[in-house]
Amino acid sequence: MKILLLFVFIVFIYNVNCILFPIAVRLPLNGTPPDMGGSLWPKPNFQEFKNEQFYIYKRNFSLVLCPELNNCERDIIEKLWSHYQNVFFTPKLPNESPNNAENILKTVSFRIKPENKKSKFKLSECEDKYYPFIQDTETESYELNVDENKANIIASSIWGLVRGLETFSQLVYTPLNSNKLAVNKTKIIDKPRYFHRGIMLDSARHFIPLNLLKKHIDIMMYNKMNVFHWHLVDDQSFPFESKVYPDLHKKGAFSPIHVYTQSEIKELIEFARIRGIRVIPELDTPGHTYSWGLGYPDLITICWKDGKPFQEIYNFHGKREILNPIQNFTYEFVGELIKELKNVFKDPFIHLGMDEVYYRCWESNPNITEFMKSNNMNSTKDLEQYYMSRVLSAANSLGYKVTVWQDVWDNNVKVFNNTILQIWKSDKDWREYLQKATKDGYQVILSSPWYLNYIKYGSDWYDFYKIEPTDFTGTEAQKKLIIGGEACMWSEFVDGANSISRLWPRASAIAERLWSTMDLNDVEEAKFRLDDHRCRMLKRGIEAGPIFNSYCGNYEPYMSKSLINEPVFNYIESTQQINSANKNQIFLLFNFILIFIFFKV
Amino acid sequence: MKILLLFVFIVFIYNVNCILFPIAVRLPLNGTPPDMGGSLWPKPNFQEFKNEQFYIYKRNFSLVLCPELNNCERDIIEKLWSHYQNVFFTPKLPNESPNNAENILKTVSFRIKPENKKSKFKLSECEDKYYPFIQDTETESYELNVDENKANIIASSIWGLVRGLETFSQLVYTPLNSNKLAVNKTKIIDKPRYFHRGIMLDSARHFIPLNLLKKHIDIMMYNKMNVFHWHLVDDQSFPFESKVYPDLHKKGAFSPIHVYTQSEIKELIEFARIRGIRVIPELDTPGHTYSWGLGYPDLITICWKDGKPFQEIYNFHGKREILNPIQNFTYEFVGELIKELKNVFKDPFIHLGMDEVYYRCWESNPNITEFMKSNNMNSTKDLEQYYMSRVLSAANSLGYKVTVWQDVWDNNVKVFNNTILQIWKSDKDWREYLQKATKDGYQVILSSPWYLNYIKYGSDWYDFYKIEPTDFTGTEAQKKLIIGGEACMWSEFVDGANSISRLWPRASAIAERLWSTMDLNDVEEAKFRLDDHRCRMLKRGIEAGPIFNSYCGNYEPYMSKSLINEPVFNYIESTQQINSANKNQIFLLFNFILIFIFFKV
Repeated sequence: MKILLLFVFIVFIYNVNCILFPIAVRLPLNGTPPDMGGSLWPKPNFQEFKNEQFYIYKRNFSLVLCPELNNCERDIIEKLWSHYQNVFFTPKLPNESPNNAENILKTVSFRIKPENKKSKFKLSECEDKYYPFIQDTETESYELNVDENKANIIASSIWGLVRGLETFSQLVYTPLNSNKLAVNKTKIIDKPRYFHRGIMLDSARHFIPLNLLKKHIDIMMYNKMNVFHWHLVDDQSFPFESKVYPDLHKKGAFSPIHVYTQSEIKELIEFARIRGIRVIPELDTPGHTYSWGLGYPDLITICWKDGKPFQEIYNFHGKREILNPIQNFTYEFVGELIKELKNVFKDPFIHLGMDEVYYRCWESNPNITEFMKSNNMNSTKDLEQYYMSRVLSAANSLGYKVTVWQDVWDNNVKVFNNTILQIWKSDKDWREYLQKATKDGYQVILSSPWYLNYIKYGSDWYDFYKIEPTDFTGTEAQKKLIIGGEACMWSEFVDGANSISRLWPRASAIAERLWSTMDLNDVEEAKFRLDDHRCRMLKRGIEAGPIFNSYCGNYEPYMSKSLINEPVFNYIESTQQINSANKNQIFLLFNFILIFIFFKV
Repeated sequence: MKILLLFVFIVFIYNVNCILFPIAVRLPLNGTPPDMGGSLWPKPNFQEFKNEQFYIYKRNFSLVLCPELNNCERDIIEKLWSHYQNVFFTPKLPNESPNNAENILKTVSFRIKPENKKSKFKLSECEDKYYPFIQDTETESYELNVDENKANIIASSIWGLVRGLETFSQLVYTPLNSNKLAVNKTKIIDKPRYFHRGIMLDSARHFIPLNLLKKHIDIMMYNKMNVFHWHLVDDQSFPFESKVYPDLHKKGAFSPIHVYTQSEIKELIEFARIRGIRVIPELDTPGHTYSWGLGYPDLITICWKDGKPFQEIYNFHGKREILNPIQNFTYEFVGELIKELKNVFKDPFIHLGMDEVYYRCWESNPNITEFMKSNNMNSTKDLEQYYMSRVLSAANSLGYKVTVWQDVWDNNVKVFNNTILQIWKSDKDWREYLQKATKDGYQVILSSPWYLNYIKYGSDWYDFYKIEPTDFTGTEAQKKLIIGGEACMWSEFVDGANSISRLWPRASAIAERLWSTMDLNDVEEAKFRLDDHRCRMLKRGIEAGPIFNSYCGNYEPYMSKSLINEPVFNYIESTQQINSANKNQIFLLFNFILIFIFFKV
């Protein structure tokens, strides 16, 4: 019987082990060690490093949550702590034993000040109560001290702790000729310059798989960005699973596998929430809606030419690609859809697009010109005003706050005051747009100089980095209306094959511009830090592209010991692991049956 | 005892199974099916498809080698057949059983005509006797017929069979709403337009890991390219393991892990040979040698300025980066090194660089001007002539044939007649260079319009595709001196993170230009085929980039069932698999011990 128990125990250990540690933890991490943590990205407001060094050992390294953290806050830190275990202790790092003579860093503690009495919530309520709707620059501020045997992170909110943990992770390095982890005595005082630091990804020109979106969300956290602006649908495809109007995705998506289900989106939002990242959906109308018409043709304006319907005018509009603004059906439809989005997404904001409205198509359609005449509209501008007012009213009445692309305002259409304008036109005249829009009193998000889908040979991140958002003629009050910026990655030429290497570390340049102080603007200083940061991203399994002639370590992609192919870093459900686990279970069962037979015999 | 045997048998099967089939073979291949094989790339000279369809089943599909193939030829086909098993039967394709009512394709046969009596070789001799030194366009010609239960590939050489097998693999598709493989009745007659169709990769600005080089070699085969021009070393690093002058890589490589050992290079050459691909090393001198000087400073000319040594003149030269041409040591050194290369590489050709010679540095050095004076040299052109003649003589005396970049000839230095010039300057005036160089009687390789490291937004492959190499004023004889072309990927901004998505499918455009007939030049026809070809590459685990708004299938990178992370496609030694196999063995041992104890008890 003892032997039987031993056998069962061995089988059990083998199986557990196989699932939890499928990788040999035996290879050193090599590469350029950071200069005592001096390669932080984005660079903190204040940093001070001392020579004193503390080693970190997996078996002697733990998290301390101060009692004033409530259960929602604890949940976030605990989940991130678990995530960062793979960042600190990469799969191939040897699990060494501490040496008694060494200074050892044993704990990282997390504290929120002031220590107010906090409400306790059910864990299920945390998703709503602790959604990172960050609207000021204090919320993410933090202080970090590494001294003696502990690191302390202190912040005024959970989101400051999240940023502090990332900074701590960047301080950890592998001293030269060693397999150990170490961190130096350090003091950091830090806060962002802008509270809106975003990435816009377009999932309509090419589908960006959920796992890849998660990976981008992680990379955003590694770059202290906090807004994922999701350009969800467009002319080319409608990958959002609509339960209200199912033909939108059934007929509008590229294929049934190129769809985000609502439960997947909720999973992504939760993934982002833990990382202090908002997810703002964009439902772009009235243009960019060709894919909507595949399921619901009546929504769309038929464009005319030379007295004939369904005519395209290349460079101006297609045969049918802009919503029909003269029928109630359109407004009911859009209203129901944004209501559906409100049940899926958690952010108070929705982005309603409103860019590139094809006036010429509206003008070409006899029903529309008739409607305009009978409603005393003098121009399509009035029609755009009419469309926008109805849709914005619907959004406001659902409790939404709204962002739109600059176009409506640009067309002299009167936009509600509480709407945020995203400035995207012209990578040269953006200063003029900022000046005018802030003079009109609008809050603005800058994107014009940060269209990262446009590529050119060489170090184009220099251009992104050197942008100074306040570099326009205006009052201090005007400049305060800039709430931040977004790097945009339109996906005409981007999908899973190149999305990461094309966006990162180019978007990191923008991350630092939006986080760090205004006076940090020397590309020559930044470039070595950025190169280190790129190597750090590689070490975290992210195939960020190179910025100049250089090298990192054996974790570079395709190196024979690279981490890029490690299951923990590839964001794919590992069929291999799952399969192997299933097999083990089947095998376990076999063993039991056999042992049973043995004993019967 | 029977039970024991059963138990041992189960353990054995489980273990074998775990090593050989680690992946669940249960998921369908989806995506856009090729239009009856019409999406071949590069497009064959003649193709005819019929509606008649044959299904392919793994358990009923085999290779037939006609008796006239000798052992070296058999070895190549057998190895490739094994390689293509993963291409035909991707890991997640269900292993279905044939249906009796179906037409089934059971065999692919390989025949070489005329059926000469062939020498038999020892398998160890095949590497030399069957090295793909292809010097005409007949060698790779082939005919392919798919009819009744078999496919027949007939060629005049083994290399034609290799190309025919690739074409066959492209004919295999998954009919809509099915998990099966099928191929249509087909007839193909095909041969390349140029016999030199190359990719140049630079492993000095960034290190390109061996596994990644192998992956590129596979992709070259999938695009019917046949020359890998390896720009092995440069100013930035010296990753070639030299046993004759070990400080070259010990001091000149980025780090000890950023080195290609000679055995790794031999492994790569053999990998490429099987695929009908030559590997031509480039040892670029006398410029581009900064990294050489790290180990052997005496090799390098010290540049002067204002009467002082070790002075750089930005944009012209560094402090020390060009070989010293006035000492025997330099020639002995280069001679020994190219002799060492000859023992590693198998190609009759070596590329000796000779581009961007920094005259200003030579002119600045008093020892050199003294030497020129005492040797009656009027200009640095004479010195370049002197350098080149000595190095080319050394190469010729070792039995090498030589390619150089166009610069020497461009500088009016007299180049030996049998040298091939690679035209790389100016993506606009290359026609003029071709005209002049062929008028001077040189064989040329075109690269100027095909510098793929230069990127721009949009479909730049159009530009590569539309290039017509013979589009210059010259005689037919002149035009016959164009032996082919090479796409060049300099790696200042490229490494493992983006090498594949940046090179492919952009280089595929060049592959078709160099293979297919001159009249195939309609980008609008080509673009859909190229998009299909890109999807096919994704399905083969290659993260080729997108060329316009589109989608493929669930094998896109990061899709939850993507093939990109399958061990068979990631070109990395899978520690997971090895580890798992070891564990299984240990476990097996445990079982035996336990069973032994049981029986003893």
